[in-house]
Amino acid sequence: LKADYIVTMNEKNEILLNAEVIFDKKILKVGYNLDDSPAVYLGKNSVLMPALINNHTHLEFSANTTTLNYGDFISWLNSVLENREDLFLECSGKCFKNAVDEMKKSGICAFGEISSSGNDLKYLTKQPLKVIYFNEIIGSNPAVVDMLYQDFLARIEESKKYENEKFKVAISIHSPYSVHPILMDKVIEIAKKENYIIQTHFMESKAERKWLDEGKGEFKLFFEQNFKLSKPLIKPVEFIRKFKDTKTTFVHCVHANEKELEEISKINGYISHCPVSNRLLNTGLLNLEKVKNKYIDYTVATDGKSSNYSLNLFKEIRAALLMQTELHPKYLAKDLLKSVTINAAKSLGLNNGSIETGKDADLISFKLPDKIKDIENLPLQIILHTNEVNYLYINGEEINL
Amino acid sequence: LKADYIVTMNEKNEILLNAEVIFDKKILKVGYNLDDSPAVYLGKNSVLMPALINNHTHLEFSANTTTLNYGDFISWLNSVLENREDLFLECSGKCFKNAVDEMKKSGICAFGEISSSGNDLKYLTKQPLKVIYFNEIIGSNPAVVDMLYQDFLARIEESKKYENEKFKVAISIHSPYSVHPILMDKVIEIAKKENYIIQTHFMESKAERKWLDEGKGEFKLFFEQNFKLSKPLIKPVEFIRKFKDTKTTFVHCVHANEKELEEISKINGYISHCPVSNRLLNTGLLNLEKVKNKYIDYTVATDGKSSNYSLNLFKEIRAALLMQTELHPKYLAKDLLKSVTINAAKSLGLNNGSIETGKDADLISFKLPDKIKDIENLPLQIILHTNEVNYLYINGEEINL
Ligand SMILES: [Fe+2]
Ligand SMILES: [Fe+2]
Repeated sequence: LKADYIVTMNEKNEILLNAEVIFDKKILKVGYNLDDSPAVYLGKNSVLMPALINNHTHLEFSANTTTLNYGDFISWLNSVLENREDLFLECSGKCFKNAVDEMKKSGICAFGEISSSGNDLKYLTKQPLKVIYFNEIIGSNPAVVDMLYQDFLARIEESKKYENEKFKVAISIHSPYSVHPILMDKVIEIAKKENYIIQTHFMESKAERKWLDEGKGEFKLFFEQNFKLSKPLIKPVEFIRKFKDTKTTFVHCVHANEKELEEISKINGYISHCPVSNRLLNTGLLNLEKVKNKYIDYTVATDGKSSNYSLNLFKEIRAALLMQTELHPKYLAKDLLKSVTINAAKSLGLNNGSIETGKDADLISFKLPDKIKDIENLPLQIILHTNEVNYLYINGEEINL
Repeated sequence: LKADYIVTMNEKNEILLNAEVIFDKKILKVGYNLDDSPAVYLGKNSVLMPALINNHTHLEFSANTTTLNYGDFISWLNSVLENREDLFLECSGKCFKNAVDEMKKSGICAFGEISSSGNDLKYLTKQPLKVIYFNEIIGSNPAVVDMLYQDFLARIEESKKYENEKFKVAISIHSPYSVHPILMDKVIEIAKKENYIIQTHFMESKAERKWLDEGKGEFKLFFEQNFKLSKPLIKPVEFIRKFKDTKTTFVHCVHANEKELEEISKINGYISHCPVSNRLLNTGLLNLEKVKNKYIDYTVATDGKSSNYSLNLFKEIRAALLMQTELHPKYLAKDLLKSVTINAAKSLGLNNGSIETGKDADLISFKLPDKIKDIENLPLQIILHTNEVNYLYINGEEINL
């Protein structure tokens, strides 16, 4: 393939003009005049770049549009508890298909799915995108810890049956406030043994901060009413340290403090930034500058339709670009493209996210509305003007959009 | 017409469920079971509300997509100077049509157009939306003040020929830093005599703040190089006071201070908030809470495609909702709907923007993806899920979308 702009996302962040890529399942060559037979030209103002990766979603909740209560984290959580079963029931084949279709059209080749029930398993094994399937554990009541653990193991086993080149099993520990430390330890042990990638929600809300620090605040009433839990089970730093020697993404981190960011950095953890979700639940805005200052690689993800109106990742990074008003749009734009390609690939242990020899041929192509005068502006203009892609290749195969 | 949700935007901000509106050119009745003949039902999850009003645009620049340089106000300004003539030449019939079509599809019935050249006049007199046509004056060089003024008068006269029910003439003074005070006075005098509505850009950038306060900063070099101007021509507060006894909208005001907001409030001025434009030029985020505390009515507008990727007003208020992270999403959502209906109508002197007996029948209808459990959530859900409308009525007439 030949395009006007090839955004490689390689180590040097190179952008190649009027260049070519040759691939089968993997990328074979990148450069100029590579072959005797002329490359297929993608057209005027065409961009070729690595396909996007949405590293944190909850497709089980895809039936939600106007049901859940936005604007406040605790009201939202209550509305999730109240409507969860109904929303799960409403989401079967068609609903999952719409969710995957929306991602596909926006150029997503792979996603990290948090599964709390296993409802999403069947559909996800039969669709064309790559999936890292995080079986999630949640539960803090010691009386049922064992039952929950058995159910978790059963879900792991079930999902393992479907493992293949495009479908990988992983695990998720819901959060420091909702999982009993005994369960955490057991599950992390499995992850280490089996080399499972991990995700966990961390410091999403002020309420979580207050609860874990002082055992007070809005969570106190919430836990007493719903789970008969009267004090937090673990200190935040202790929680982070449990993930040493694993590949873990900490999702949200809006209210993480310096010390915690440092701990995440020490264990080479990733942070997943979900700006629209955070805004709709009114939990605040992640300080990306602090994250970068600790040398933590961040990804941007949509979270589920439980807290977003869309799973389109171009729209999500455009939202991030608009919302992060403290950062320079041009430089932030470059970072945001990294966050949904190479960074997300690393966080999920995938061999894609950049256009380099040997990487999986997971590519997208689309056209800009006009030419770019100064190539420095390309990342920003891509984010402003792109909603859907013209072509999506996964392992070198063109996917029907 | 009958809809599931009628968002009236009246003084009490009423939302009526399963109610009806009867209209010819004007709205005749609003309520329940109004007529013997049954009303046309707009369907499940339908919303009927006042059509939107984009009070500040520059359609002359609609040819821009990737040409102008974003990320920094001064670089942007330089790129405008460099590309202005080319962009104007590129924008003729088709280009204006695309711009108006995009607004129309997003439910806009009226807009405030800033015209610096008159290029946009012909097309705008031949399209179905209401236009407040702001003839703009710009120029600070005393030597050419008179010539500029004559040209301005000629444009006013020309545009007056087209005045009708849907097309009104108005004036714009570009900004406190770019118009000579003598010109300001002359033009404001005309506005007062002829009852022309006024718009002016004000305190858009930090550079403007520094220049007007101290005659220093990035603007100093810019003015010296481009306009042989070595010091600012007017103090900000003095500038605002010139607009006493006129109906004036101050556009941007990102860097306006408390004192200036107070002065704007005193003269009953409006503020137009263009969050995407401000973000792309990296000029900062308007503090809406301060604006509200001074009892100033604000509007949200797209500005031109010179500093935006879209003229869709639903997308613009969604951007505002995401970007204004300090404000509660649910209450901000209500405010944002006001900003693009009743507030914008007042700022442009239009008899629309709310569903009340006697108002112009400027209405839109669209459908939400699902029902709303708690009506408190309706404004937020409208902003999240609406991109285009199903019906647009202007003066009671259905407009082809
Ligand atoms: Fe999540
Ligand atoms: Fe403007």
